[in-house]
Amino acid sequence: MTISAINARNQFQGNVKRIKRGDVVSEVEVDIGNGIITSIVSTSSVDDLGLKPGSQVIALFKSTEVALASFAPA
Amino acid sequence: MTISAINARNQFQGNVKRIKRGDVVSEVEVDIGNGIITSIVSTSSVDDLGLKPGSQVIALFKSTEVALASFAPA
Amino acid sequence: MTISAINARNQFQGNVKRIKRGDVVSEVEVDIGNGIITSIVSTSSVDDLGLKPGSQVIALFKSTEVALASFAPA
Amino acid sequence: MTISAINARNQFQGNVKRIKRGDVVSEVEVDIGNGIITSIVSTSSVDDLGLKPGSQVIALFKSTEVALASFAPA
Amino acid sequence: MTISAINARNQFQGNVKRIKRGDVVSEVEVDIGNGIITSIVSTSSVDDLGLKPGSQVIALFKSTEVALASFAPA
Amino acid sequence: MTISAINARNQFQGNVKRIKRGDVVSEVEVDIGNGIITSIVSTSSVDDLGLKPGSQVIALFKSTEVALASFAPA
Repeated sequence: MTISAINARNQFQGNVKRIKRGDVVSEVEVDIGNGIITSIVSTSSVDDLGLKPGSQVIALFKSTEVALASFAPA
Repeated sequence: MTISAINARNQFQGNVKRIKRGDVVSEVEVDIGNGIITSIVSTSSVDDLGLKPGSQVIALFKSTEVALASFAPA
Repeated sequence: MTISAINARNQFQGNVKRIKRGDVVSEVEVDIGNGIITSIVSTSSVDDLGLKPGSQVIALFKSTEVALASFAPA
Repeated sequence: MTISAINARNQFQGNVKRIKRGDVVSEVEVDIGNGIITSIVSTSSVDDLGLKPGSQVIALFKSTEVALASFAPA
Repeated sequence: MTISAINARNQFQGNVKRIKRGDVVSEVEVDIGNGIITSIVSTSSVDDLGLKPGSQVIALFKSTEVALASFAPA
Repeated sequence: MTISAINARNQFQGNVKRIKRGDVVSEVEVDIGNGIITSIVSTSSVDDLGLKPGSQVIALFKSTEVALASFAPA
């Protein structure tokens, strides 16, 4: 079974840059070209997906999780 | 009071491209240069922040919200 | 590009039972055999995925989103 | 069946102050004494719980959902 | 005070199958009959609820956290 | 660049009471006057923000993350 499409509108392809491995969860930094997306996933997921620096991945998140801020230029 | 730093590691600056306004929540598309981040926020937040197409915003989300997928090239 | 594996540990296959369509977000009920999983996604996602009653889908969510409760039997 | 304890560390008791009812989701403001917690839940949940202004409720959320910011005093 | 009803539409009763205990967060697998729901909660919550393999729990999550995917049969 | 306003409706100012530091994520308790808000953030965020007991912070979370429960008085 292969997922062909997912509703998460926010999907960014990138390369794993760094993995900070923890006992239960790990922090994975994904370089998406114009920035880094950081993801915290279970360490068992890191192993199941076989992630290591250089792995190609898609970072995805739901629209409901994204907050918006306005800002004052420095 | 001005927020000077926030722990959300994932912060992307961009321009509002489109707002689909709903009764309670609205969908806001933010162009971050190499892609679009879509956010669903309350319509009252859209009004409070005075968002409209062209507004400069930061889209931010927590690392715990980001899932990772591996993929098979087409 | 096809997603071959995703880190979300919680993936349940089922059939769309009902869609309550809203202006910006819609509520989709997925029958997973021994229960219903309800999902709120953007209405544009419903359209992009071509969802309608009877569609086969996977409902997925991150482990960090799941709360646990103990209970007193009635 | 009655839930006797839930793992969500963040639980605040309050009174419903205002409900902005939408087609699929509704915005519920809960007065917790020293502030307002705003919740967006499905409109069917509002009906199932019989919420109306004055209803006593608990607003709860997982620790993983809370971001932290430092700030500069105005 | 006992919670009598909660708005989270997605509530699945099951037995704790396994707990992977970490310093700050722990991974709890809940067998819900036709599958496993994995939850990551704070380790202090595991202790407060007195969770151990065999404990009966309810796994619950908000509809807004559930993503939907369509798939291609293998 | 300074964030001047953020859409998260739920923002509570308080003092850090306790930090339980973990390898990848840490648990931060924030005293907001009439209660404690607990946040789990990455340990690198704790360091970036320079958090320690007594630090003044804002705890913030999106409305979509808040569940509501009704309850039976004991």
